[in-house]
Amino acid sequence: MEFIEHYQNLISAAVGENRFTEGPEELYEPVNYIISHGGKRLRPVMVLMACDLFDGDLRQAIRPALAIEYFHNFTLIHDDIMDNATLRRGQPTVHSVYGANTGILSGDVLLMKSYKFFEELQPELFKRCVSIFTETGILVCEGQQHDVNFETRNDVTYDEYIMMISHKTGVLIGAALKIGALIGGSSEKDAEALYQFGLHVGVAFQIMDDYLDVYGDMKALGKKQAGDIYENKKTALYLLAMEHADEEERKELDYWYSKKTDNIDKVYSVENIFRHVKVEEKALRLVQKHSELAHRYLDEINVSADKKKPFLQLAGQLLQRQF
Amino acid sequence: MEFIEHYQNLISAAVGENRFTEGPEELYEPVNYIISHGGKRLRPVMVLMACDLFDGDLRQAIRPALAIEYFHNFTLIHDDIMDNATLRRGQPTVHSVYGANTGILSGDVLLMKSYKFFEELQPELFKRCVSIFTETGILVCEGQQHDVNFETRNDVTYDEYIMMISHKTGVLIGAALKIGALIGGSSEKDAEALYQFGLHVGVAFQIMDDYLDVYGDMKALGKKQAGDIYENKKTALYLLAMEHADEEERKELDYWYSKKTDNIDKVYSVENIFRHVKVEEKALRLVQKHSELAHRYLDEINVSADKKKPFLQLAGQLLQRQF
Repeated sequence: MEFIEHYQNLISAAVGENRFTEGPEELYEPVNYIISHGGKRLRPVMVLMACDLFDGDLRQAIRPALAIEYFHNFTLIHDDIMDNATLRRGQPTVHSVYGANTGILSGDVLLMKSYKFFEELQPELFKRCVSIFTETGILVCEGQQHDVNFETRNDVTYDEYIMMISHKTGVLIGAALKIGALIGGSSEKDAEALYQFGLHVGVAFQIMDDYLDVYGDMKALGKKQAGDIYENKKTALYLLAMEHADEEERKELDYWYSKKTDNIDKVYSVENIFRHVKVEEKALRLVQKHSELAHRYLDEINVSADKKKPFLQLAGQLLQRQF
Repeated sequence: MEFIEHYQNLISAAVGENRFTEGPEELYEPVNYIISHGGKRLRPVMVLMACDLFDGDLRQAIRPALAIEYFHNFTLIHDDIMDNATLRRGQPTVHSVYGANTGILSGDVLLMKSYKFFEELQPELFKRCVSIFTETGILVCEGQQHDVNFETRNDVTYDEYIMMISHKTGVLIGAALKIGALIGGSSEKDAEALYQFGLHVGVAFQIMDDYLDVYGDMKALGKKQAGDIYENKKTALYLLAMEHADEEERKELDYWYSKKTDNIDKVYSVENIFRHVKVEEKALRLVQKHSELAHRYLDEINVSADKKKPFLQLAGQLLQRQF
């Protein structure tokens, strides 16, 4: 999609211009390290897209777009420490290169630096955007904690799971779009509708992610088939299965999900239950549901259908993993 | 000092009213835990004092005062993880009770929650205060990193040390006063003068802290005599000694400061060099210098001398460790 590339180039240039050159080097080198690995930078792209949707001044949106991207990277640095992760975007994680202490402190300074990117906005808009940004950051932390809690809980419900992934993934996409919309001059109502669009795209994306772990082409995705099952992750598939399985199947799921094993029988058994309770179909229906909800919110927005097309394209391709 | 207690009571009440009752509990319990241990809460007290100095509306200053206090506690949680500290204010540190991962995430959410405490200010004031707050947070992180760097560097200069303690201690005191002043309706010029007052009080306090480690009444302070020397800490005393010692003494200091030992000879030898190069006198002169600078900035402020008295009292008692 050409329009995405156009926005990505704008973000890339801004990232380049905003490299941290101040000292102490030990603090900012790790920050420049993770930012430079980039990734697809779809969140800041969404800030720009939303600003454009309302014919706003893109130049005003670029630094706030960086705030969203830098915030995201702050969460990655700290999450990787907590998860003991060694690789991120194919590169060694910040803490595995620089140590956990530097990771903590570099993450902290990156979060605060991201607040600075709103400072060129006039006071009303600054206050509005910073408040959304702060609220979103809090929800992301809460989502992360719920995710941690779910690992050791055996009674997580499907609704709790949706709440958790909304917070971990959805709200930041929503906030990126809402902030971009407000900077672009949208009404509060339109900005909120775009937020909800982003939230549901995020949720649909996350359920799709769970789906693809079992039913996707893992070669194309570069992941291990059924990795979530091996890892005992309480994904949407697992929760749907627990909800619809009979007593005996539930016991079997409990059995396998309390074991840490590379035994392929585990995957066969679990997938067998998934098949029996039609998890594949149910998961796809839920992706569809959140996708439709997203579209309905997009429909509500008071701009021409033509201008909304990029958002439909982006959502569609996200779900098809074409990024 | 009665006026301090009055402000402390206001802060205490506000802390009580703003306990975090939302979930997930695993995230907010550690936050309530550290906040409830209190300490003297002089930073938020300073926000209120500064607001009062300009006859401002104290009710407007209370939540921003909490922002300063909560930010400070965020830094304590993360610093204690980095320092592997087990005790803080006589209580087990957050990470030693709840684990490092919870400490990281609770610290993060506390930082973002602290931004929320500015949201009742009108947009211009919100933007001004949040910008100062962000800039201060960045400087505090930088100061922390410099402090870490200094541990392994052998060429730290006295000026670098002053810069480091300004960032680690001074700027947050300065920012507390400046934010309180602006909320109280002060001019930018007066707010900046009060910031400088706080900065220099902070620096004087920190040098005094180094001084008391060797020359203070350790029983009264509840610390180990010469603990900084045993720990090889590059304090103001050490840096003054290195600057003024002769070649041979410098070698001896290098020798002792590269050793980790409980040998009392280390303290005798180091204190002997301190005596020879008149470190005690020089350190006190520097405390005096920053104290005088602070007073000079206070003098500049366009309010009656009478109203400034509490600030002189506070600074005086801080330096005499009467808190």
